[in-house]
Amino acid sequence: MNAAGLDALLITPGSDLRYLTGYHAHALERLTCLVLPAEGEATLIVPRLERPAAEASPAPGTGVRIVDHEDGTDPYPLVKRALSGRASGAGNDSGPARAVGLADRMWAAQVLALRDALPEARQRLASEVLAPLRMRKTPAEVAALREAGAAIDAVHARMGEWLRAGRTEAEVGADIGRAIRDAGHETVDFVIVGSGPNGASPHHATSDRVIAAGDPVVVDIGGTMPSGYCSDSTRTYAVGRPPAEFTGYYEVLFEAQRAAVAAVRPGVSASSVDAAARSPIADAGFGEAFLHRTGHGIGLDGHEDPYIVAGNTLALEPGMAFSIEPGIYLAGRHGARIEDIVVCVDGGVERLNTLGTELVELPT
Amino acid sequence: MNAAGLDALLITPGSDLRYLTGYHAHALERLTCLVLPAEGEATLIVPRLERPAAEASPAPGTGVRIVDHEDGTDPYPLVKRALSGRASGAGNDSGPARAVGLADRMWAAQVLALRDALPEARQRLASEVLAPLRMRKTPAEVAALREAGAAIDAVHARMGEWLRAGRTEAEVGADIGRAIRDAGHETVDFVIVGSGPNGASPHHATSDRVIAAGDPVVVDIGGTMPSGYCSDSTRTYAVGRPPAEFTGYYEVLFEAQRAAVAAVRPGVSASSVDAAARSPIADAGFGEAFLHRTGHGIGLDGHEDPYIVAGNTLALEPGMAFSIEPGIYLAGRHGARIEDIVVCVDGGVERLNTLGTELVELPT
Repeated sequence: MNAAGLDALLITPGSDLRYLTGYHAHALERLTCLVLPAEGEATLIVPRLERPAAEASPAPGTGVRIVDHEDGTDPYPLVKRALSGRASGAGNDSGPARAVGLADRMWAAQVLALRDALPEARQRLASEVLAPLRMRKTPAEVAALREAGAAIDAVHARMGEWLRAGRTEAEVGADIGRAIRDAGHETVDFVIVGSGPNGASPHHATSDRVIAAGDPVVVDIGGTMPSGYCSDSTRTYAVGRPPAEFTGYYEVLFEAQRAAVAAVRPGVSASSVDAAARSPIADAGFGEAFLHRTGHGIGLDGHEDPYIVAGNTLALEPGMAFSIEPGIYLAGRHGARIEDIVVCVDGGVERLNTLGTELVELPT
Repeated sequence: MNAAGLDALLITPGSDLRYLTGYHAHALERLTCLVLPAEGEATLIVPRLERPAAEASPAPGTGVRIVDHEDGTDPYPLVKRALSGRASGAGNDSGPARAVGLADRMWAAQVLALRDALPEARQRLASEVLAPLRMRKTPAEVAALREAGAAIDAVHARMGEWLRAGRTEAEVGADIGRAIRDAGHETVDFVIVGSGPNGASPHHATSDRVIAAGDPVVVDIGGTMPSGYCSDSTRTYAVGRPPAEFTGYYEVLFEAQRAAVAAVRPGVSASSVDAAARSPIADAGFGEAFLHRTGHGIGLDGHEDPYIVAGNTLALEPGMAFSIEPGIYLAGRHGARIEDIVVCVDGGVERLNTLGTELVELPT
């Protein structure tokens, strides 16, 4: 924070709060806010009725002081007081904060209330200082992501129980949702079952479309484990024998995804991993059909830094975890995507999703 | 908006976007934003890969124009362009917006990017104009809340299958979570199983505490239906015969909750409903043990206006839907809460949770 010129971070419930204190609080209209100054004591401001939950969390063990506010009282003066009490480098009171870093997903209602309560403080984003920390996972964090990866792999491994001709995407999706929980996730974050033409919309969820024999089906699923760490994996299935055109470009995608995974090692740029996926797809004539970047970081958030995208010159380091998920989408016809979470390790890469990436042809 | 002096609303994914357009978009780091000027054409800005989902949603039917941005390009100039193209009352181009209303739960990352992209525009909250609309539910919205209420009632009605001595709160909670989905909810939003002393922490979730014979257990559960509307209901159970002290104050709570429900009718203030719950509890000597307001509105968000709290002079109107959920919490011992969702109707009140509110004593 000192190097970035930030006097304090103001962190409302979400992954940043959990990362910094271990406190997994729900985002509610009542203010919960960690005031973390560059120097001096940290204060966790909570509604009075959340105090027992905050005290039972790991937060007090990190040394933060807990302060509460009663229902119906204005909590923002407490933020100001917690900030004004912060020490300067010399241990003296240091006047009003001039720059504060807000949790990136803080609600606008709180951003504007803090703007009005702290008019001298320029509002910036906490990710300026937190993203570089959060994207370098510790071994314990990698272990948590590995556990999440195994849990979602266990769901994909059972896909033949649910995915067949004559069922709707929504029916299949409901079964998948139950299985995501049964596999150990605390929450189901998304279930995409994109059959036939719906597979060409990368962020399609589910619909009442009845799956037909010969349909390619993109299944992209993920959840959050009790640890707070997320899973995210895509496989593309065929229900019976798919069209030859599809089989042809699936082969291109398969090789592109493998090449991008193989390109990951310390020192390589994020953009070059994107290029490793993109080039073979473009060379085969499907460049326009690969609509999105190759991947996103993952951890306590499902999408976080680093992004595997053209223009991102960030050099990968051991502990960085992200998706490799190229896709090919033919509007109105069908599509395919293959997604693994990988982690950059000394000397190379570890896949956290370990199922094969070949096209899985299920019986109709 | 004209009356409030707002030139436009800027609405990112969430309940406001769903309310205005029917588009149920996931909040992601890539910008999706409805630019809704006070006069002139509305524009929905979406990432290119979300375009098919946006086009398949009800949004185009509301007359909004869809504009997309490619991965890796800066989308904020599109917001500026959509705003500058807005018509004034006279149909002329009307210069830069001077005041915009942001979705209350817009992420700080987007709030600050919009601040920088539109430096002339004072940022305010969209709820200034949307909350008065959203808190007056249409008959179709009340029907959706009624359906949600019946779904969560069906889960409470099965509590005896899961809640018994010797099981942990977390085990019971996992069963409840599955049942919430099976009852027709699309997502499980929260599962509180507060047994014994954990019942005294109103926002306790679940823990590894083993439920013992004689424990009172607060069970507060809710989810979101495919319609987008939320459920939320609390019942307090006893596993076997509870302590006499508990039975005594449960009776006080039971009467207080009934009195507050009975107080709801058009023209009555929100604060007087709070008082109707609070007075009998205070009269019985438990005023300090009722730690929170009496209730919150509910709709596309689990918590929204109107809040049933001291100081809220809002006069209730037909179509306003909210919780009535007084509680009594004895720290270190146990607690109780009874929560129904109700809707203000012509001449009185309709309970959307229809199970009895007496203490349910389950076999151990």
